[in-house]
Amino acid sequence: MYDTGNLSYNWAKSHMQILTHSIDVLKESKPLKGITLGFCLQITKETSVLLIGAKELGAKVVACSGNPLTTQDSIAAFLASKGIEIFAWSNQTKSEYDWCQSKVLSCKPDIIIDDGGDLNTKAHFDRRFQSLKIIGATEETTTGLTRYYSMQKKGKLRYPIIAVNNAKTKMIFDNKYGTGQSTIAGYLRAMNLLFASKRIVVCGYGWLGKGVAQKCAGMGSKVIVTEVDPIKALEAHMDGFNVMPISQAAKIGDVFITCTGMRDVVQKQHLLSMKNGAIVGNVGHFDVEIDSKFLLNQVVRQVRPNLDECVLSNGKKIYLISKGRVANLIASEGHPPEIMALSFSNQLYSVLYILKNHKKMQNLVYDVPKQIDNQVATDTLNSMNVKIDNLSKNRLHIKPDGKSVKA
Amino acid sequence: MYDTGNLSYNWAKSHMQILTHSIDVLKESKPLKGITLGFCLQITKETSVLLIGAKELGAKVVACSGNPLTTQDSIAAFLASKGIEIFAWSNQTKSEYDWCQSKVLSCKPDIIIDDGGDLNTKAHFDRRFQSLKIIGATEETTTGLTRYYSMQKKGKLRYPIIAVNNAKTKMIFDNKYGTGQSTIAGYLRAMNLLFASKRIVVCGYGWLGKGVAQKCAGMGSKVIVTEVDPIKALEAHMDGFNVMPISQAAKIGDVFITCTGMRDVVQKQHLLSMKNGAIVGNVGHFDVEIDSKFLLNQVVRQVRPNLDECVLSNGKKIYLISKGRVANLIASEGHPPEIMALSFSNQLYSVLYILKNHKKMQNLVYDVPKQIDNQVATDTLNSMNVKIDNLSKNRLHIKPDGKSVKA
Amino acid sequence: MYDTGNLSYNWAKSHMQILTHSIDVLKESKPLKGITLGFCLQITKETSVLLIGAKELGAKVVACSGNPLTTQDSIAAFLASKGIEIFAWSNQTKSEYDWCQSKVLSCKPDIIIDDGGDLNTKAHFDRRFQSLKIIGATEETTTGLTRYYSMQKKGKLRYPIIAVNNAKTKMIFDNKYGTGQSTIAGYLRAMNLLFASKRIVVCGYGWLGKGVAQKCAGMGSKVIVTEVDPIKALEAHMDGFNVMPISQAAKIGDVFITCTGMRDVVQKQHLLSMKNGAIVGNVGHFDVEIDSKFLLNQVVRQVRPNLDECVLSNGKKIYLISKGRVANLIASEGHPPEIMALSFSNQLYSVLYILKNHKKMQNLVYDVPKQIDNQVATDTLNSMNVKIDNLSKNRLHIKPDGKSVKA
Amino acid sequence: MYDTGNLSYNWAKSHMQILTHSIDVLKESKPLKGITLGFCLQITKETSVLLIGAKELGAKVVACSGNPLTTQDSIAAFLASKGIEIFAWSNQTKSEYDWCQSKVLSCKPDIIIDDGGDLNTKAHFDRRFQSLKIIGATEETTTGLTRYYSMQKKGKLRYPIIAVNNAKTKMIFDNKYGTGQSTIAGYLRAMNLLFASKRIVVCGYGWLGKGVAQKCAGMGSKVIVTEVDPIKALEAHMDGFNVMPISQAAKIGDVFITCTGMRDVVQKQHLLSMKNGAIVGNVGHFDVEIDSKFLLNQVVRQVRPNLDECVLSNGKKIYLISKGRVANLIASEGHPPEIMALSFSNQLYSVLYILKNHKKMQNLVYDVPKQIDNQVATDTLNSMNVKIDNLSKNRLHIKPDGKSVKA
Repeated sequence: MYDTGNLSYNWAKSHMQILTHSIDVLKESKPLKGITLGFCLQITKETSVLLIGAKELGAKVVACSGNPLTTQDSIAAFLASKGIEIFAWSNQTKSEYDWCQSKVLSCKPDIIIDDGGDLNTKAHFDRRFQSLKIIGATEETTTGLTRYYSMQKKGKLRYPIIAVNNAKTKMIFDNKYGTGQSTIAGYLRAMNLLFASKRIVVCGYGWLGKGVAQKCAGMGSKVIVTEVDPIKALEAHMDGFNVMPISQAAKIGDVFITCTGMRDVVQKQHLLSMKNGAIVGNVGHFDVEIDSKFLLNQVVRQVRPNLDECVLSNGKKIYLISKGRVANLIASEGHPPEIMALSFSNQLYSVLYILKNHKKMQNLVYDVPKQIDNQVATDTLNSMNVKIDNLSKNRLHIKPDGKSVKA
Repeated sequence: MYDTGNLSYNWAKSHMQILTHSIDVLKESKPLKGITLGFCLQITKETSVLLIGAKELGAKVVACSGNPLTTQDSIAAFLASKGIEIFAWSNQTKSEYDWCQSKVLSCKPDIIIDDGGDLNTKAHFDRRFQSLKIIGATEETTTGLTRYYSMQKKGKLRYPIIAVNNAKTKMIFDNKYGTGQSTIAGYLRAMNLLFASKRIVVCGYGWLGKGVAQKCAGMGSKVIVTEVDPIKALEAHMDGFNVMPISQAAKIGDVFITCTGMRDVVQKQHLLSMKNGAIVGNVGHFDVEIDSKFLLNQVVRQVRPNLDECVLSNGKKIYLISKGRVANLIASEGHPPEIMALSFSNQLYSVLYILKNHKKMQNLVYDVPKQIDNQVATDTLNSMNVKIDNLSKNRLHIKPDGKSVKA
Repeated sequence: MYDTGNLSYNWAKSHMQILTHSIDVLKESKPLKGITLGFCLQITKETSVLLIGAKELGAKVVACSGNPLTTQDSIAAFLASKGIEIFAWSNQTKSEYDWCQSKVLSCKPDIIIDDGGDLNTKAHFDRRFQSLKIIGATEETTTGLTRYYSMQKKGKLRYPIIAVNNAKTKMIFDNKYGTGQSTIAGYLRAMNLLFASKRIVVCGYGWLGKGVAQKCAGMGSKVIVTEVDPIKALEAHMDGFNVMPISQAAKIGDVFITCTGMRDVVQKQHLLSMKNGAIVGNVGHFDVEIDSKFLLNQVVRQVRPNLDECVLSNGKKIYLISKGRVANLIASEGHPPEIMALSFSNQLYSVLYILKNHKKMQNLVYDVPKQIDNQVATDTLNSMNVKIDNLSKNRLHIKPDGKSVKA
Repeated sequence: MYDTGNLSYNWAKSHMQILTHSIDVLKESKPLKGITLGFCLQITKETSVLLIGAKELGAKVVACSGNPLTTQDSIAAFLASKGIEIFAWSNQTKSEYDWCQSKVLSCKPDIIIDDGGDLNTKAHFDRRFQSLKIIGATEETTTGLTRYYSMQKKGKLRYPIIAVNNAKTKMIFDNKYGTGQSTIAGYLRAMNLLFASKRIVVCGYGWLGKGVAQKCAGMGSKVIVTEVDPIKALEAHMDGFNVMPISQAAKIGDVFITCTGMRDVVQKQHLLSMKNGAIVGNVGHFDVEIDSKFLLNQVVRQVRPNLDECVLSNGKKIYLISKGRVANLIASEGHPPEIMALSFSNQLYSVLYILKNHKKMQNLVYDVPKQIDNQVATDTLNSMNVKIDNLSKNRLHIKPDGKSVKA
């Protein structure tokens, strides 16, 4: 297992050039010396590259998982062997999960790197940790940010948080291209059924939904989109997808993929109205989009890895992927390393930014500074040998009088 | 011609349901009674629906064109027959164009509806009109907004301007889907050559470029994208397009489409390095993206409607569509009416908003109010018989503590 | 008009390199000297390149049109000015059309080049021409071939006919890529409505239907396919399109495109069940796919060029493109020249093949010889600067015993 | 393992409705009673449905694998538990593989169902089995057929063989849609890298290549196609892909997928010219398309399941999927059951056809009778609830005189 972890780490590392390049450049000066970083991320081969990199830059690194189910044990073992304090294993109970998070906070991190907001929330509301001196944090997901914005509104944020999730080089690429691909990977592996010709219902048409819908169409599926936002619904309609309410889609869909970031999207009555053999799964952060509690209370047996057959009272068999939890992570390996390199470069640059600027920052949620965002994009293009144009004196905007101004 | 105009008006009207529906609902109360509206838009069949609608709502309507070349004369004639004061005809000289704009301002409009910013600019900087009492304006294009933001920065705006262009229901749909289709239409008509297999260079990957690139790929072309923004360049790269500098693309492209909103994108040296037979055109607002001045100074003859053959000093023949001016409008009929219904509903609602709120507004550029944007999307979905879900008590966001909050 | 014809001829010629290259190579030896060729093709700019080329190779060229409506008069005028005996003009009556065909046969052609089979049929069944000594013929369309196969079955063919239509380099490219694009062009011009989001019903999923469905999807439409062949229906289903009977599709489609080569595809009862505003058109060879006779017997007025509004007894308005005749040719310019170069190179090579081999040939329908088909593909790739691999000693097939054999 | 096999069998069975439906209908009459069937297929969950079905129809069933590596052991164990004589396990040596095939022939099959041609070849050329009385055989692959056609040419076929591979409902769907999806599945699992933005070189543009190229493009990759056939190359070019020789593609590709059915496609010199980190794999039947012998003679270590890192003498690391053997089968689970239902229904119907007609058949390779092909398509559409139109008296072809004939 140790060796599997090692090989996986190396495979990921060799496909996360922009991150490893930054670390190589900074390594000498140990910019994170004396700093404790508390990570709460999905424990995957890609995350191991970030964690070991942070250690190479001088930090003390402690980590738990942002999800009780998804930890890859071989990676956790490998990280431990490299001197990372790691509190994570696969298939944790709720209390084990909670214990791991507490352990990370007990190590008194200066900066928190979170995925979903559980660790930052605990740092705010768990009495044991309310006196911790945290100088800042970052957040990887929309879900986490929703929680902080609500805390900010109530004036309850105790330190600045950089919304790594909102960096364009994270948001667009991780959410759209990353989830797009890893959803295909997860569903392929969970069900091994034909995508071509199937009616796939994609719930939500944000970045996730857009990516998932596009890739499903690319596999030959007939995509149906459900939405609550009229503008996004109109986009889906113009992109050539069928748009309808979930109550109607439930009756005709073959496969369902929730990616809304909301709760109660696929409800009991929708599940009861589905066709025999329908397959449902979720790729949103929390397992609250599908009423999996209802499904898992039926007559259930596992028919394939990460696939449960649930026989409803009406006799129909509905199949649930990875118990309604993030199917792209659990049923497959999550996003490919090239995508995680973008997210984690934003993470690394944001941590360094907090270190340098935290005294000037207020207890607010901040966007990733534009220059970091651009830098990550430029690094990536360079690493892929893609050249682009520069705005120069000859490339100007247009002035009101019809003449040019500098861009 | 009168009759052609009439038929075209009716054809457009019957495909702009959301606009005509709003007008029908409001007609009784004549909300624009006593108001003079000064329009500076492309004079097309779709625009005629807005202009006549405004008149039906009680306004006095005066109009010129936002482009000296693109006026459809049959529409202008039809509008005149309907009591619109219209100062526009096709293929105007610069001074004719200027004269028309002056005529509109001479009618003392209360509100200006502009496309490109020429009329608003004249209202600000032409001495004859600086004492006009204008209560507000709207703007249809990115180009126009660039000009106003620059004026706003210098504190020179004399009245509030609503950035209709920035409404999502305008921006995304007009710029991406509208220009995407009308560019295909314009190039098809201008060149009648095979799209499949051709290397098409799309300069710029904003909404316009995204729409154009996608539709060209949909026609079977191999798309090359040029960009100056690293994030947009990375998006194009991940969308499967080849990204390279214009200097490199110039040598291998078969067809070029500029959609940047910048100037000097395709320069003399790029034109000289192109393959014999290359076809260049522009769908950005101004004719400054391609060095058409250089091209039109060569040995030139028209080989098809809206297509000029330019024989360069190196002996190569380069073909220029509609003299470098908006090819999608000039070589074809512009955006289809369903798209213009979105833009013009935003225009109408924004004009009504200004009328009601101008006293509370400052001399700034305003975004279209979110509720207008959503209303336009909802109206459109309804008109297309598309139903969507509602956020209800059962559809909630997720609270920090893992429980739900209302969306 | 003469000049328009000349310019169009030159534009087409410069984009039909493989045809003009062959003609240039053969010109010296005048291989068609002393031969009269009777053409019955669509009179377009591309056809003019073939006709003038044939003359340059020494032939006497006489021509009429394969369709009473589609002749481009400026091309006909230009051809006449170049010494082609041309009997064609636009919008012919049935008797004018017949007269033109008779004139061509009166010139005693040695070889007939036909499109649709009208000229070959007349040469067989019109008593005046039954003694003509024709050494062979070629045919451009599926429709024509259906007629000859039926004649062959009854032993009635009087001379060999080469099925140019069946050459892969004609069939796949003309029917799929050519019609795919020209259908978009024709419908765009006839209706100027948004493709994105519309439900487009494509009747037939042969090469034509495949090309049309793919391009419509590329424009953002939701494509519905109707078929009578279960295998083709299954292909459409797996390609992600919705497959259903026409009776069901009629009720929900926004736009209809028939491309079956059959008759009575869209019948009176289907037209009556359509939504108000539905648009119907045909791109198959004959105008028998839609019951246009029924439509044109309603209250009809032309609302745009090539678009008739037909008000049915149930009050609904149905719009018919170019009276149910080939919309891609009539409402636009037909296939782009690059595609016609493929078809017409097959025509030219087949005419030369007949001249050399007619004594060995029987009165049957022949496929285009494989070497001609490959030559046309190779010529095209060369003209587009595309290099491919060669089968060499190192590239071998696999023998039964697991070792290699020459390919 | 037994249980995994059982569950997999049931999962496959419930998604192969058309096959299980036929078996249910025929079961009573035991049409295969007294017959021994010798199967040589990939031992997967889908194959188990066919094998157990054949037994239910009365046959004695003996089976080995068509590939020494790909047997799924849990399926083999399950089949044994169900009374199938099965000679197959994963990762066989060449001599084990040979032994298994001999065991099947020793059971004196009346009919052989083969995949790749190894069993039929042995039945012809291994002296021990040359006196077997075999009444006919079927073949699943292009590769097998190539071998039989060569045998037929030399007059060496000893019994009729039905080319199940050539049925449209097998050829198009298995080769294009099946391999298209399973290749994505196999590569996703082997490499877990981003498809979007990568240059993927697809060698061959037959049904396999077309399917693979389309799905890769659907995943956002930039596809390069190599071909030796000019017509297929031209199709790829018109489909928007870049076409070039392998020597050129080798230098710029990120990922390579061979699907030619030829040998020596990716040779030593191509491998040496590849970029560091390039990934190569094969989805053609035999492992002779890539020079994997050369690669596996380098410094090799396994870095992921089914992925070997090969360090070349020039220092570059090239990664080989599943040792150059069918990546879609070995690195993933092969085609989804819906596709195999099509192939195996053709197999079952063809076996029944041989049984009934073998006395009238000659020792030739036969195509699957058209009525079987249509039946399989119709069964499939019915099972998916897709309705299509019928050719009726009202749907007629067009006669030479312009009137109608029955289709």
